[in-house]
Amino acid sequence: MIHDLGFARLDLDRERRQGLPEVVYGPGKTAEQIAAVVTALLTHNTGPVLATRVAPDVAEAVLGRVQDGRYAPEARLLLWRPARLRDFDVAVVAAGTSDRPVAVEAAAVAEAVGLGVTTVHDVGVAGLDRILQIRPLLERQDAVIVVAGMEGALASVVGGLVRCPVIAVPTSTGYGAALEGVTALLAMLTSCAAGITVVNIDSGFGAAMAAHRLAHVSEAHR
Amino acid sequence: MIHDLGFARLDLDRERRQGLPEVVYGPGKTAEQIAAVVTALLTHNTGPVLATRVAPDVAEAVLGRVQDGRYAPEARLLLWRPARLRDFDVAVVAAGTSDRPVAVEAAAVAEAVGLGVTTVHDVGVAGLDRILQIRPLLERQDAVIVVAGMEGALASVVGGLVRCPVIAVPTSTGYGAALEGVTALLAMLTSCAAGITVVNIDSGFGAAMAAHRLAHVSEAHR
Amino acid sequence: MIHDLGFARLDLDRERRQGLPEVVYGPGKTAEQIAAVVTALLTHNTGPVLATRVAPDVAEAVLGRVQDGRYAPEARLLLWRPARLRDFDVAVVAAGTSDRPVAVEAAAVAEAVGLGVTTVHDVGVAGLDRILQIRPLLERQDAVIVVAGMEGALASVVGGLVRCPVIAVPTSTGYGAALEGVTALLAMLTSCAAGITVVNIDSGFGAAMAAHRLAHVSEAHR
Amino acid sequence: MIHDLGFARLDLDRERRQGLPEVVYGPGKTAEQIAAVVTALLTHNTGPVLATRVAPDVAEAVLGRVQDGRYAPEARLLLWRPARLRDFDVAVVAAGTSDRPVAVEAAAVAEAVGLGVTTVHDVGVAGLDRILQIRPLLERQDAVIVVAGMEGALASVVGGLVRCPVIAVPTSTGYGAALEGVTALLAMLTSCAAGITVVNIDSGFGAAMAAHRLAHVSEAHR
Amino acid sequence: MIHDLGFARLDLDRERRQGLPEVVYGPGKTAEQIAAVVTALLTHNTGPVLATRVAPDVAEAVLGRVQDGRYAPEARLLLWRPARLRDFDVAVVAAGTSDRPVAVEAAAVAEAVGLGVTTVHDVGVAGLDRILQIRPLLERQDAVIVVAGMEGALASVVGGLVRCPVIAVPTSTGYGAALEGVTALLAMLTSCAAGITVVNIDSGFGAAMAAHRLAHVSEAHR
Amino acid sequence: MIHDLGFARLDLDRERRQGLPEVVYGPGKTAEQIAAVVTALLTHNTGPVLATRVAPDVAEAVLGRVQDGRYAPEARLLLWRPARLRDFDVAVVAAGTSDRPVAVEAAAVAEAVGLGVTTVHDVGVAGLDRILQIRPLLERQDAVIVVAGMEGALASVVGGLVRCPVIAVPTSTGYGAALEGVTALLAMLTSCAAGITVVNIDSGFGAAMAAHRLAHVSEAHR
Amino acid sequence: MIHDLGFARLDLDRERRQGLPEVVYGPGKTAEQIAAVVTALLTHNTGPVLATRVAPDVAEAVLGRVQDGRYAPEARLLLWRPARLRDFDVAVVAAGTSDRPVAVEAAAVAEAVGLGVTTVHDVGVAGLDRILQIRPLLERQDAVIVVAGMEGALASVVGGLVRCPVIAVPTSTGYGAALEGVTALLAMLTSCAAGITVVNIDSGFGAAMAAHRLAHVSEAHR
Amino acid sequence: MIHDLGFARLDLDRERRQGLPEVVYGPGKTAEQIAAVVTALLTHNTGPVLATRVAPDVAEAVLGRVQDGRYAPEARLLLWRPARLRDFDVAVVAAGTSDRPVAVEAAAVAEAVGLGVTTVHDVGVAGLDRILQIRPLLERQDAVIVVAGMEGALASVVGGLVRCPVIAVPTSTGYGAALEGVTALLAMLTSCAAGITVVNIDSGFGAAMAAHRLAHVSEAHR
Repeated sequence: MIHDLGFARLDLDRERRQGLPEVVYGPGKTAEQIAAVVTALLTHNTGPVLATRVAPDVAEAVLGRVQDGRYAPEARLLLWRPARLRDFDVAVVAAGTSDRPVAVEAAAVAEAVGLGVTTVHDVGVAGLDRILQIRPLLERQDAVIVVAGMEGALASVVGGLVRCPVIAVPTSTGYGAALEGVTALLAMLTSCAAGITVVNIDSGFGAAMAAHRLAHVSEAHR
Repeated sequence: MIHDLGFARLDLDRERRQGLPEVVYGPGKTAEQIAAVVTALLTHNTGPVLATRVAPDVAEAVLGRVQDGRYAPEARLLLWRPARLRDFDVAVVAAGTSDRPVAVEAAAVAEAVGLGVTTVHDVGVAGLDRILQIRPLLERQDAVIVVAGMEGALASVVGGLVRCPVIAVPTSTGYGAALEGVTALLAMLTSCAAGITVVNIDSGFGAAMAAHRLAHVSEAHR
Repeated sequence: MIHDLGFARLDLDRERRQGLPEVVYGPGKTAEQIAAVVTALLTHNTGPVLATRVAPDVAEAVLGRVQDGRYAPEARLLLWRPARLRDFDVAVVAAGTSDRPVAVEAAAVAEAVGLGVTTVHDVGVAGLDRILQIRPLLERQDAVIVVAGMEGALASVVGGLVRCPVIAVPTSTGYGAALEGVTALLAMLTSCAAGITVVNIDSGFGAAMAAHRLAHVSEAHR
Repeated sequence: MIHDLGFARLDLDRERRQGLPEVVYGPGKTAEQIAAVVTALLTHNTGPVLATRVAPDVAEAVLGRVQDGRYAPEARLLLWRPARLRDFDVAVVAAGTSDRPVAVEAAAVAEAVGLGVTTVHDVGVAGLDRILQIRPLLERQDAVIVVAGMEGALASVVGGLVRCPVIAVPTSTGYGAALEGVTALLAMLTSCAAGITVVNIDSGFGAAMAAHRLAHVSEAHR
Repeated sequence: MIHDLGFARLDLDRERRQGLPEVVYGPGKTAEQIAAVVTALLTHNTGPVLATRVAPDVAEAVLGRVQDGRYAPEARLLLWRPARLRDFDVAVVAAGTSDRPVAVEAAAVAEAVGLGVTTVHDVGVAGLDRILQIRPLLERQDAVIVVAGMEGALASVVGGLVRCPVIAVPTSTGYGAALEGVTALLAMLTSCAAGITVVNIDSGFGAAMAAHRLAHVSEAHR
Repeated sequence: MIHDLGFARLDLDRERRQGLPEVVYGPGKTAEQIAAVVTALLTHNTGPVLATRVAPDVAEAVLGRVQDGRYAPEARLLLWRPARLRDFDVAVVAAGTSDRPVAVEAAAVAEAVGLGVTTVHDVGVAGLDRILQIRPLLERQDAVIVVAGMEGALASVVGGLVRCPVIAVPTSTGYGAALEGVTALLAMLTSCAAGITVVNIDSGFGAAMAAHRLAHVSEAHR
Repeated sequence: MIHDLGFARLDLDRERRQGLPEVVYGPGKTAEQIAAVVTALLTHNTGPVLATRVAPDVAEAVLGRVQDGRYAPEARLLLWRPARLRDFDVAVVAAGTSDRPVAVEAAAVAEAVGLGVTTVHDVGVAGLDRILQIRPLLERQDAVIVVAGMEGALASVVGGLVRCPVIAVPTSTGYGAALEGVTALLAMLTSCAAGITVVNIDSGFGAAMAAHRLAHVSEAHR
Repeated sequence: MIHDLGFARLDLDRERRQGLPEVVYGPGKTAEQIAAVVTALLTHNTGPVLATRVAPDVAEAVLGRVQDGRYAPEARLLLWRPARLRDFDVAVVAAGTSDRPVAVEAAAVAEAVGLGVTTVHDVGVAGLDRILQIRPLLERQDAVIVVAGMEGALASVVGGLVRCPVIAVPTSTGYGAALEGVTALLAMLTSCAAGITVVNIDSGFGAAMAAHRLAHVSEAHR
């Protein structure tokens, strides 16, 4: 079923098909447009409603038009009707402090859809102790999201330590040969740790949604 | 525990850590070397032993040295001690007939580690009926591996139809602007269907291993 | 015949040769320069006169100097002497709301040269229903302009549904691996739907001009 | 309607939808596979059946299995049931003698689907007389396919001379900075001649199919 | 002989070796630094002294410190002691009005070192008449500098018309697939017109210096 | 030993392992965060504490919170507890005045860790005398850091003159085909002078740290 | 005047326009085709006739059909009616022994059109003495062609030593980061030696033709 | 002093300048040429004489002409007059068995110039135990050469463990997104382990020569 707002045609059926209403991508939309989409989704769907990459001033204007929402500024996430906590645990592990915004987005979106999230920052491979220290934590997870820029080596190291799914998020952290995240992306795709999968550069959102799909399978089997 | 063969140092502990012995990457290794590694893994580990991307003549020579193996020529896979069938179903869906070798590798490796596999070839998006026809099949899966070259659009379409994890494998099929698979890779990474994850170009193996990780989580939760 | 303004040498013969006066490319020109060119074209040619990619303040200054023009701000298009409606129908179909500015430019230019234009926004392939819903509309067109960024998969899906010419416009929408539109461009060029053609990234103008050429052939044959 | 051959699932409905049966892409298919697909298409569809990029030895084997076909070796095209000549004229114009194979494929496919084709080889822009000499010929066409490698400048020059649709095919002719056709591709996409459209590198087939779509519109309007 | 200013070590011998004092590259230098270098060059050398890519405010500050200089704002060039007119004529031919700043720099530098310069703007290949009209002018030159962005086809066309040296300057004009001038650069390097040479993107300065080298040879032979 | 600050997890053991405390990478950190990390490092480690790429206003705020530090504005370096001068001499040689900021960072970091540093600016290969003049200086060094953008040829020339280690730092100086430093990077990696090594674009810091490693070996052997 | 051979349309007027008949590009042409073109050029033009990049067996077959030709195997050049020696001297300077084939082509073509050529091989910048030794030779030339792969630094060094035109030819010599000559190309385009110009990778032919254009100017001025 | 062999001009002074005679790069040279160069170097210099990347048949032919040489087939190295063992220890650590040829070249060249070499193969980061096991070995070295393809993460991990110089050699091992070694190269350049330096892809030779430079400094200080 398509809900036509003129500037947007909402896929209201998505919730039934994929277990989550459409998520609003903020950039290029006015506060009025975001508010209209959110309102329609709150009306016609029943699950969590999210708008990502929303700037603070736009967020404030949207919240003024649609009640009961919440804004997580570091994650740039607007959220209504968060999901209840489900039995699926995800660790978000970030290589450096500069990767923080992407890790925070991944964590916020994952929580919004009901996953249990633990975030660990600053786990660079140049100090293996920092990884080995959190090894027990990693081994308890249902999935691990690795957020890293520059050479993205953390994904390979984590991928070799755990047996659960590892979702790698390259970030645009770094300069010069980091090529705005392309280097981390390519490195993660060619990881020697088998079975790692990769999402788009800086896409904390994409990683969280991949984890959401994982949780679905796990639940379907119980 | 490291088993040192001189030319290779086997990570025998990997089976305990990740639920599967090391997998042998065939290219650049002699039949003697592959046989030595396989023998050690069969001796010191208990699960399935695989060697990937093995040419037919090398495979024959290896099978002459290590008993009870099997060679799947189209998948270029050598296999000993396949796993029992587990309760985890994966569809391997390929866009064109040229993508077949990669799809076959994905299916063969997934079966070797115990997943239930259904393969569907030739599901190009230029004929939507071909996709809609298999929609019920796709909706029954625990995960879908999408194998596509050229513009890789199949991943986005499948990603929008199912709620389970979708692992996209770009292939080097095509010519000119297909750039040896880079175009499909980039397209899959920027898919508008949220939560799709991607592995390296032509890596049917990587996709199967990602599915193996998924099966582990699902089993851990029962 | 060349009309020399010093900073520009107008190709006044173009209207006779190609059925449309030269179109003014706005960036890098002052309001005075645009006004001078437009005045010359209005004087020496007889068809529609367009200036593209003109910023609002420049547009206002030009309109103050040359009467009877109109500015379409979203399309950034200045227009004098629009063509009468011709019997040639084009649909402009955009994948996401972020692709809107390019779609709007394509539609505005196509209308200015006399084509019948229907625009549909937000037709992403992640919800096939949104495409199938407009299938009857698409099948009635003489040509379809598909505007899409990110992985650009919409072009392949539309290309498989209709038999008329499909002109694909990649957009710079998206981030990371979208590579400022290069990914959508490459994907469209390698589409599995045969006979799709492609114009430059973000070139709504180029797509409209390609449609203008199509209309000419169609008319020549009546 | 899908016709399932196991290794391929034929889109028999395509002829009704797009005015031409599926075209078989030769690379990666055995003679047996091509013959099976062709036989099914000849049986279930009524229009021309083509197989592209077929090597001579494969072609011979296919022709031994499926009667009444014809092989054009320079175009690497297998053809059954060519269309009758339609009232739509296309010129295929190639910049250099090295671009010949691509031009020949474009011409052969266009003829197979019923277009009237004139081919002119060796029309490099370094000798403008060679272009100006054929200007009257170009002005009589319903569409022009420009085939050029290296810097691809011929597309811009032709695009500025004619008012009909111009379909540019970059070729992998040249060396060094020609980058296997990428340079010609980029140059054609950024042509200063408005309304030119572009297909994939070396895709004479794609250009002919684009012309086929053009012919449809033109016919629909009579 | 090296003149050490601490932040710069001047190659005062360059004038003897190459017929022109060092040219000052403006970006990244303060007005004080430029003034110091210029003063040293005026003192220790005897020929024209130039500083390129100097912003207006910096230029004004430099002129306040070093007498008898002149600033050409459109060319962003500071100049002292211009050379006398030599018997060597160069045409600077620019494809579009957006290429103007680069063409103006080339012309200003060429004049500063004594060459006879004629500049023609807006000579796009989409209107061949614009080129043919200036053909007699081009044939009278000792060298032609072609300035073009986008697909850079003008270089090939001019290269095929004249027998004198052609120096091609790609510009960063255009968008999307123009790739900030890389497309024009590659196209010019693969021109089908033999013997064209190319300088860096946007380097009007480099082209003028290449012409300066040409003038030297010509003079040496008289 | 890991010191957990929440937003950062310090690798306090690094000083013991590598002879230098962790170095703080400034971008993306607040003054508060930098101050907290620096304080912890000053408390738990004994060697020099550095923060790189710190903007002036942030630097001032940090110095207001942590006593006894020093800011080198041109190098953008914050420093506490500089090392004593060691017996290891490094020349930092920069090709052009635009490469100065990178050279200054290299020199400042090298001095901070105790190396004896001589810096020579403006040693372009277009004037060989400028290099030959400093040849005796270069031959006295324990290592040479070559800082160059554009074509980066200085690294090859210096590499052919001296027998000590040469660390090449490509810079993002230049425009057009300089590709933000990628050209210099590639050129240095393919230098015909054997045994040159390369660090990331603009990474004066990386070069200084490489020199620090060299000094360690040299000292270990005495 | 166009001479139409069907597969080729000769630009017989080129000799009058540019001082040299068309040059035949060998790759992709049969011996019969080359012979036909050469025969026509010998008949209708009066100057030197060249065919480049011709394999030995093809060359032999052509020479069997067209009398009085000569084949230079290392340069892969077929030549009829070489020009008389003109008063214009060119040095071809190659950086390494691997660059030899390109240098030899440049020298052979330059000699064929009448230039005085001196070739010096193995002038790498890692040994400055090798360059300084030939400095007097270089200073006597009317132009210098620099042939270099890898980092291409020789162009910058030579460009700084001489005042005559320097034509740089990047070669595909080297491996890895040499990127098939792209690195040398980019490096030469960003050379710090002002006024150097560049031709396509491995195009010894292009450099010789550029020198031919230079000789024309020089002669025109006497 | 230059020794001119016509096809090559030997830099005999290099031994005095850099402590090692010129090293012969094999590709593109005949056995006769290699033999001539080697003979000259053996006559006029006193240190080790090496020829790299020599194919077995060429090597045999060279050894037949120049006595007392030795060929290491896996390293493709020809060697005369190896240096005595010096007090400088280098570990060559390779990530995978496919990286072996590059590691073997690095080790063979390093030994040839007198370094003490220990090689460890198959140290992938997906099994950290394999690295931790050799940590004591690594900590005893004067330098470590890390050889790795794919994502090249081993360089970062080793760089974080040791304080001596780390020379990273990316290899062309891997497929797809490994981009023939470019991914490993970029990853190593952006390593989070400070002070790592990088040489060209597959350049085991370059790494050994960098180690040779290190050994010189260390010796100079005793």
